[in-house]
Amino acid sequence: MASPFSLDNPVFSKFAFYSTVVLSKTLCMGELTALYRTRRQAFANEEDLTLYARSRHTEATTTDVSVERVRRCHLNDLENVLPFVLVGLMYVSTKPGATEASRVFQIFAASRLLHTVAYLLPLPQPTRSVTYLTGYGATFFMVYRIIKAIY
Amino acid sequence: MASPFSLDNPVFSKFAFYSTVVLSKTLCMGELTALYRTRRQAFANEEDLTLYARSRHTEATTTDVSVERVRRCHLNDLENVLPFVLVGLMYVSTKPGATEASRVFQIFAASRLLHTVAYLLPLPQPTRSVTYLTGYGATFFMVYRIIKAIY
Amino acid sequence: MASPFSLDNPVFSKFAFYSTVVLSKTLCMGELTALYRTRRQAFANEEDLTLYARSRHTEATTTDVSVERVRRCHLNDLENVLPFVLVGLMYVSTKPGATEASRVFQIFAASRLLHTVAYLLPLPQPTRSVTYLTGYGATFFMVYRIIKAIY
Repeated sequence: MASPFSLDNPVFSKFAFYSTVVLSKTLCMGELTALYRTRRQAFANEEDLTLYARSRHTEATTTDVSVERVRRCHLNDLENVLPFVLVGLMYVSTKPGATEASRVFQIFAASRLLHTVAYLLPLPQPTRSVTYLTGYGATFFMVYRIIKAIY
Repeated sequence: MASPFSLDNPVFSKFAFYSTVVLSKTLCMGELTALYRTRRQAFANEEDLTLYARSRHTEATTTDVSVERVRRCHLNDLENVLPFVLVGLMYVSTKPGATEASRVFQIFAASRLLHTVAYLLPLPQPTRSVTYLTGYGATFFMVYRIIKAIY
Repeated sequence: MASPFSLDNPVFSKFAFYSTVVLSKTLCMGELTALYRTRRQAFANEEDLTLYARSRHTEATTTDVSVERVRRCHLNDLENVLPFVLVGLMYVSTKPGATEASRVFQIFAASRLLHTVAYLLPLPQPTRSVTYLTGYGATFFMVYRIIKAIY
């Protein structure tokens, strides 16, 4: 009986693809923060000023509204995307049907991409709340499947 | 030789169960934050006010004491639970005894559930420190086993 | 065909080793924060003061410059080390060559250890930016390999 953790398994292959997409998106938030810090001239560390500040009067700050928004969006990704990938690994081990699994991964990935758009523009609420809860629901659906497979 | 990453392996099955429990607990902190933000009327984003604020005089804030406590507890989970699951995956690959592995997973899961209780009530110190260090010890025990298995 | 997720596979064995190293380093940041909080007498929670504060006049604070630096360094680890390990798992499943894989894992681990040194001392910029981008590049190289293996 082959291991489910193989790219020959279409469920794992889909999982690897969508996980890589949402993890890459999360990583890009780090670069976006750096971009906003430069544009807003809002650097968190003294030693950053020497190289990146355009004026010698710029001081270190951690309260710029735009930078903090990007950082909250990034933290929300860490809180939701990383647990999704870890719960997803357990879910793949339960050998779910390929159609069900694809839908769950696609719904999660789409909801997180929309969440980022809703957070950064920002879009009027409850858009962000709905995208957040959709991803949340996809993860908890997998939690239910795992617990059911074990007991 | 069968892969250890299968629900047929009792060590992986236990690992999948306890990992799912602590990851679900971590995810629930997101909802708890939303609950506290509504109850305390302390929203981080301007666009949240339109829909969720009961008074038009409510302003965005990131300094509410109760909300920040939940958020510190959540961040502490990210700092400890996510590394536990990842280190745990490597530990499962060393094919540990089922009894030892169960104990490690149970101790970690219990310590993190107690940590949350100790943080949110809060319980007098050193309760929180002890629960934190217990979970920490469980993870580093696995680190020791992994390094020993490789070298 | 054997599963790549086995310590018999030299790629997985290297991955398990370097992942455990960077995850342990990340976990140590939690202890380092506790150390700085005690040394700087800057505790985030009221209940910590009773046990750990040397003076009864000490108040809870979340704005100590040294503590916040350690915390930013820790958060940067969560943002980069955890995605590296998860992307790395998918990368191992593509069965990369042992030499290429070892180099990628070593470059990532070295860049993150140097990043911590550069952040905590701190070293003059762009040292920290360069170490950050090097680790970032290693992870995105694996992302490229995964997407290419799937399509």
